[in-house]
Amino acid sequence: MGAYVLGIDLGGTKIEAAVFDGEGKIVGRHRDKTEAWRSEEEVFERIVAVATQAVQNSQIESSQIAAIGIGSPGPLDPDTGYVIETANLPFRNFPLGPKLSERFNNCPVTLNNDVDAGTYGEFKAGAAQGAKFVLGVFVGTGIGGGLILNGEMYNGFNKNAAEIGHIVIEANGPKDGRGIRGTMENLAARPALARDIKKAIKRGKKTLMSKKMDKKTGTITSGDIQECYDAGDAVVKRVVNRAAKHIGLGIGSLVNVLSPEVIVFGGGVVEALGESFLKRIEKDIRKVAFDFTMKNVKIVRAQLGDDAGITGAAMLARETLGQKVLTAR
Amino acid sequence: MGAYVLGIDLGGTKIEAAVFDGEGKIVGRHRDKTEAWRSEEEVFERIVAVATQAVQNSQIESSQIAAIGIGSPGPLDPDTGYVIETANLPFRNFPLGPKLSERFNNCPVTLNNDVDAGTYGEFKAGAAQGAKFVLGVFVGTGIGGGLILNGEMYNGFNKNAAEIGHIVIEANGPKDGRGIRGTMENLAARPALARDIKKAIKRGKKTLMSKKMDKKTGTITSGDIQECYDAGDAVVKRVVNRAAKHIGLGIGSLVNVLSPEVIVFGGGVVEALGESFLKRIEKDIRKVAFDFTMKNVKIVRAQLGDDAGITGAAMLARETLGQKVLTAR
Repeated sequence: MGAYVLGIDLGGTKIEAAVFDGEGKIVGRHRDKTEAWRSEEEVFERIVAVATQAVQNSQIESSQIAAIGIGSPGPLDPDTGYVIETANLPFRNFPLGPKLSERFNNCPVTLNNDVDAGTYGEFKAGAAQGAKFVLGVFVGTGIGGGLILNGEMYNGFNKNAAEIGHIVIEANGPKDGRGIRGTMENLAARPALARDIKKAIKRGKKTLMSKKMDKKTGTITSGDIQECYDAGDAVVKRVVNRAAKHIGLGIGSLVNVLSPEVIVFGGGVVEALGESFLKRIEKDIRKVAFDFTMKNVKIVRAQLGDDAGITGAAMLARETLGQKVLTAR
Repeated sequence: MGAYVLGIDLGGTKIEAAVFDGEGKIVGRHRDKTEAWRSEEEVFERIVAVATQAVQNSQIESSQIAAIGIGSPGPLDPDTGYVIETANLPFRNFPLGPKLSERFNNCPVTLNNDVDAGTYGEFKAGAAQGAKFVLGVFVGTGIGGGLILNGEMYNGFNKNAAEIGHIVIEANGPKDGRGIRGTMENLAARPALARDIKKAIKRGKKTLMSKKMDKKTGTITSGDIQECYDAGDAVVKRVVNRAAKHIGLGIGSLVNVLSPEVIVFGGGVVEALGESFLKRIEKDIRKVAFDFTMKNVKIVRAQLGDDAGITGAAMLARETLGQKVLTAR
């Protein structure tokens, strides 16, 4: 299993790709914008271009790539390599795996959910190495999850498990886009924080955010939130602490159901707000979860940052080498 | 694997035991009250007595029993056979597995959570046969869960996973005994229904339950609830329908995380309230869970009733035959 593998991370804003050698070291990489407003075929060509450039940067031939792994927003079908649909990308029932295979010498391609790939990366090469039961929690534009159970990627019956952002933790909470009240994502992801801060501003509360946020678009970034939080801004602190509490209640609930060994927290909001945010989350996890279920459980921050996705995708591809080959139709 | 196995179900009110032959048929059984107010040793002797009587009723020798499986309230450690603690039984760090083994010719003993055993029974011989991903939901004095993932009993890192009653679904809901607000169990198990009905009575609401409930003890049984519900009692209907909604929100949330293939509902409350209760639960499950995650998923009622526990315990014992032997210390 010393061959080169290619890992690709497809996101709503950027595409990343890297070639990993037999020891798991990155020997070449490339990234570019997704330009997600384009058509399916155009975005697909951008993926091929980024991947091709990463291979060229590795100074190997594409024929030396033994397997390709790609992480994509879902839902998707890892068995067929089809992306079923995506919220921020044009893909609808798109044979991303088979088409990539076709463009790279019929090389085997594995397709996984992007957050699953990120969790797998942390499991194989990051903060959760050595654990057999891992719950990955990524807080950013949404709250995505990944599950490693008994040392293996867990997808469940319909192959799209670990949608942890879509658990109800406040039955009377605000409605999300699907009309569901009080999901963890709609209480604690970045858009929820931005919504709650803007609400406070509308109610006449004073906050540094009024000056910091983008006046025209109303955009509030994770960095904006972090700066106001660190400056001790009362409104932002209240909103952030409430989000931490909601995440703690949700993840504590999931601990009682899943009994993980390591809980890895990553994503833009966690990276920006850092240790004190995580400590608050941990407090509520430990309140809700049973003591015996939390025994020797580690709560850690992700280590690989932006590389988690490409690393996990590549490792997943390597492990299925010789087992599952997707060919173009 | 044609040998006899003994399955035991230890509950707060009764102990059941049955001998299963090589084809999974019950060839002898016995049950008796637990008398849970007694000491650890006394309750243990009652378990031994019920098991011994079940063997005698089978007209075999106890030396013909190849393995014993016991389901017990937890938390417990299936690896060592110790019951760590129990809410309604005297056991604290009690070596139930090893001690049973000692009393039955050093026969191998497997110890599992009672609800896990019940779910396993439904998986092997009941409503969830043939499925690989099963979520068992048992609503009674509490809300217990069991998980079969990838065709195997799932216990997680600390061996006590699937505590599905202890997920938060209403962050501002009523506090439970541990001080946690809005857990599914504290919103929708029988004691929660009884509490909410009594609250309505206190507020002066008219309900058939005022006459039906035990005046002295205030006890409200699942049967009482069912009779008032079927009679169209407005107070009871409102309380029951709210509980169904809360269970639906909680289980729908877990579907998004676990992606089960079959969801089996059992327990006293589900048995009493029947199909219309389950239909209401299903409505909210399908609202919260993603359509692609619910594709081809079956929501069914448990088939084995009181026999689920002994059946699952016996099947779990049979499967570990030759793998894991607990001997007395």
